[in-house]
Amino acid sequence: MPTFTAPLRDMRFVLHEVFDAPALWARLPALADHVDADTADAILEEAAKVTAQLIAPLNRSGDEEGAQWLAGEVSTPSGFKSAYATYIEGGWVGLSGNPAFGGLGMPKMLAVQFEEMLYAANSSFALYSALTSGACLAIDAHASDDLKSTYLPPLYEGRWAGSMCLTEAHAGTDLGILRTRAEPREDGSFNLSGSKMFITGGDQDLTENIIHLVLAKLPDAPAGPRGISLFLVPKVLVNADGSLGAANAVSCGSIEHKMGIKASATCVINFDNARGWLVGEANKGLAAMFTMMNYERLSIGIQGIGCAQMSYQNAAAYACERLQGRAATGAIAPAKIADPIIVHADVRRMLLSMKAMTEGGRAFASYVGQQLDLSKFSADPQEQAQAGALVSLLTPVAKAFFTDTGFDSCVLGQQVFGGHGYIREWGQEQLVRDVRIAQIYEGTNGIQALDLLGRKVIANNGVALELFTAQIRTFASQPDTPYASELLDAVQRLEDVSQWLTAQAGINPNEVGAAAVEYLHLFGYVAYAWLWARMAAVAQNALPADSDFYNAKLATASFYFRRLLPRTLSLEQSIRAGSESLFELEAAHF
Amino acid sequence: MPTFTAPLRDMRFVLHEVFDAPALWARLPALADHVDADTADAILEEAAKVTAQLIAPLNRSGDEEGAQWLAGEVSTPSGFKSAYATYIEGGWVGLSGNPAFGGLGMPKMLAVQFEEMLYAANSSFALYSALTSGACLAIDAHASDDLKSTYLPPLYEGRWAGSMCLTEAHAGTDLGILRTRAEPREDGSFNLSGSKMFITGGDQDLTENIIHLVLAKLPDAPAGPRGISLFLVPKVLVNADGSLGAANAVSCGSIEHKMGIKASATCVINFDNARGWLVGEANKGLAAMFTMMNYERLSIGIQGIGCAQMSYQNAAAYACERLQGRAATGAIAPAKIADPIIVHADVRRMLLSMKAMTEGGRAFASYVGQQLDLSKFSADPQEQAQAGALVSLLTPVAKAFFTDTGFDSCVLGQQVFGGHGYIREWGQEQLVRDVRIAQIYEGTNGIQALDLLGRKVIANNGVALELFTAQIRTFASQPDTPYASELLDAVQRLEDVSQWLTAQAGINPNEVGAAAVEYLHLFGYVAYAWLWARMAAVAQNALPADSDFYNAKLATASFYFRRLLPRTLSLEQSIRAGSESLFELEAAHF
Repeated sequence: MPTFTAPLRDMRFVLHEVFDAPALWARLPALADHVDADTADAILEEAAKVTAQLIAPLNRSGDEEGAQWLAGEVSTPSGFKSAYATYIEGGWVGLSGNPAFGGLGMPKMLAVQFEEMLYAANSSFALYSALTSGACLAIDAHASDDLKSTYLPPLYEGRWAGSMCLTEAHAGTDLGILRTRAEPREDGSFNLSGSKMFITGGDQDLTENIIHLVLAKLPDAPAGPRGISLFLVPKVLVNADGSLGAANAVSCGSIEHKMGIKASATCVINFDNARGWLVGEANKGLAAMFTMMNYERLSIGIQGIGCAQMSYQNAAAYACERLQGRAATGAIAPAKIADPIIVHADVRRMLLSMKAMTEGGRAFASYVGQQLDLSKFSADPQEQAQAGALVSLLTPVAKAFFTDTGFDSCVLGQQVFGGHGYIREWGQEQLVRDVRIAQIYEGTNGIQALDLLGRKVIANNGVALELFTAQIRTFASQPDTPYASELLDAVQRLEDVSQWLTAQAGINPNEVGAAAVEYLHLFGYVAYAWLWARMAAVAQNALPADSDFYNAKLATASFYFRRLLPRTLSLEQSIRAGSESLFELEAAHF
Repeated sequence: MPTFTAPLRDMRFVLHEVFDAPALWARLPALADHVDADTADAILEEAAKVTAQLIAPLNRSGDEEGAQWLAGEVSTPSGFKSAYATYIEGGWVGLSGNPAFGGLGMPKMLAVQFEEMLYAANSSFALYSALTSGACLAIDAHASDDLKSTYLPPLYEGRWAGSMCLTEAHAGTDLGILRTRAEPREDGSFNLSGSKMFITGGDQDLTENIIHLVLAKLPDAPAGPRGISLFLVPKVLVNADGSLGAANAVSCGSIEHKMGIKASATCVINFDNARGWLVGEANKGLAAMFTMMNYERLSIGIQGIGCAQMSYQNAAAYACERLQGRAATGAIAPAKIADPIIVHADVRRMLLSMKAMTEGGRAFASYVGQQLDLSKFSADPQEQAQAGALVSLLTPVAKAFFTDTGFDSCVLGQQVFGGHGYIREWGQEQLVRDVRIAQIYEGTNGIQALDLLGRKVIANNGVALELFTAQIRTFASQPDTPYASELLDAVQRLEDVSQWLTAQAGINPNEVGAAAVEYLHLFGYVAYAWLWARMAAVAQNALPADSDFYNAKLATASFYFRRLLPRTLSLEQSIRAGSESLFELEAAHF
């Protein structure tokens, strides 16, 4: 059975050396009180223990047993309940929560490292608290003080959990057509009726209460997405003193049987005149939900990195142990029956692809985390606004590119194992199944791509994009920047394609959808090129200290620029081929 | 639950219109007696019924129930036994078998269409007879007349099944180090001892007997791959009159728990002084096994096409029904709550990618089938030799490219379904799990790529490659050939890269492994470009008849050339980056 070891040295490299996070934290008052380099390292080390020792051991058994539904009640797999109880004692659920209500106030830049560990160890387990963090964000940002003080403390503690209730059977991507209704009551609360599906953690046996954030329509709501409001609907009603009261009219109708994340209960949740409270303004629920979506989407993106990291660890270890065939240039281990398969170029190609994309993703996630922290905590309004613009631009890239390439990495990590990769006990196939959902939920990756190209680049007139590319150009024009010319070529390609697409979209709106996914991938490869050049620069400067570590960074950067970045060539050509060939075939003739 | 409809019109298009197979069959005496256009069409129609009505309905239930192992006995899922009995009555197992021993003598070009239907309907079910066909080929080509007349008739009938016993726990790709031993007995037969794993259909409850083809070492065998012999080892010993005798010392130790093809029993098979008979010459077992491998590898490749075809059918139907969002250019179905998702450019991109790769694959499989038929039945020695050379060259491409792109297609077909793609009852996730094995077994796709580039291109001095590219050049230089210039560019790229790699491999043997997988993909895209141009040419000439059908071919060809063929650019650049960046990192630092 696979074991998990958190990549602490790599995480410290990104936090301290690439981004100098402690210096940033020191200058942001809201963070300076809570965290410095030593605190951060201590938290990461404790997180590594909790995820490796408490949570990872439940990953395989959780997959085999799955969440179960019986007579309206969900039970999580053996061991989850007691592990969850231990887990929340560490305060992990409120790690980056608002200290005014019991959160620990840690920077997102640190939290993303923890999230990676959690998803790597056990994606299903991770989801039970991931949704809580998201719900807390929405409540903290939009709910009344009364709701905040009632609900946030037990949510941050992990005694209660959160869920996001968006999807209905006929309304997934297209939330404007949802049917759940909210009728006002005389006391200012509402009665909610409707049925929601695909609700992650919609029911479970881990927490005393579950706080559903539900999108629904008021009686007088306008049609479409502008008529949606957000409601807080607890599973168990809460008394004025915060104690639990009667059951609310919320029930779990069934759970789904899925390809993966089987230990995570994906529920149908029925509201039958359930009592709820409005969060934020009426008819502005979608905007309120999107506040938390930037955080959630980054988190789900990190599921892609976490699973890929776990798959990589297993595959690299296996490749060093499994003896099969001989090196092309002559036996490396002549005394053994064969050489370890890591001598073979193609096995190295697979491992290096995984390594380059996973470490590139970790750096990118940390960068987006940094911008989230700046957009929340910076005292400089311009810095804050720019960081906010970058977060908007980069969130869809993080969500979709981490998970598309994370899935590819997990498939490669399975391939390294040959036939054993297909057998359940080795764990590699579970990672493929578990990570696959991350390309679908929290907005499919196709939707992320439309958001990026249509809203964040074209509708924004390229303003946010220029903020981003300007940073790359500034970095690349410094003396002694490694891979400067490759990086300048790459960023030029991104800018040219962006401008061309902006012009094309004005002529034919279908050009956006036709190019979106490939554009997002082009964007991702260019962003990783920047991050790999930054990591290579840090490694160059650090040598000759810790040469094994820094030389590995340089070798991986070299692989990235030579073997992976060329993918941008085909992406550009395919994008420039336009939408025409997508619309030659009538729907009936597919 | 998904239903399967065989793409008969498309199959007839490939057989009759693109390749004019009936004309070929008419001039090959061994085939002319058995098949003409009408027979072929009748067989395809019957095959469509059997696979859709008898076999496809067991696909989901077979996945849920799985093959079971209890006290040494394997049982297949409910319904398999009776369906198998009906299936073999149709003579399908011996479809392309030798008529001298009861086979139907049908061309491989026809058989590949049937295999596609079988894998599309139910990959697990398909495997129980796929291995029988392979075993028959090896027996027919290499065994003594006595063994042939005893074993082939009941195998072709399907009353008995075949298995291939190659892999051992420590020996998968590297068969030279296997440990199973064969001791000669005084009567000319052998006693086999050893343990084999990953044996597809190694045990089951469908047939009266199972005939294992086992690789083992004789006492005086030289070390390595030149010391391996092939043995026929029946599960139940066969009396002189062909009736069943005592049980042989062959047992099933366990079955694997796998990601997919769960209804197919993947067995550990133990031989404990089991009686067996030598097939072919001593110490030449690997070569004998490879006779059947070209057929098996093409068959496994077709699993990739079949699963992709099934996923495509489901996804196209879903995209026409599922209402979500509005077309970018304005509502298509304003009276409904939303437009069908097939209006969205990105959904079309996914569907067209699947369609172009699946139909390109079907044409390529048919072409390889044609060359297999020519290499077996042509009376012209030069034609026969050339066809044999093309089969050797193209088999690894077929196996790996069909399954790599078939897997990608199934992932896309899952993505089209959004959240429902992740739910078991919709069937799309099962196709992803089932097809995944095809990239691994029967020689991993990395091994196929090494075979192609190392053995079939470089070691062959490009002779077979030139046979292939010359056909493309001849076609492209005909007047009015559609996409002629794109095709000439593509084939030039393949030739240039091949020459460059041949030179590089002479300098550094690692260049072969470093480039192999990307080279195989480059080869595949160029081959599909040729086939799409051929299909477009046929469609152009056929119009205005059946315009919906032929226009769909032209639209798909247009999509292929504009949006998919550009992938060759990146593949070339990545290949030309060479092996250096794969070997900068020491094994210990991965």
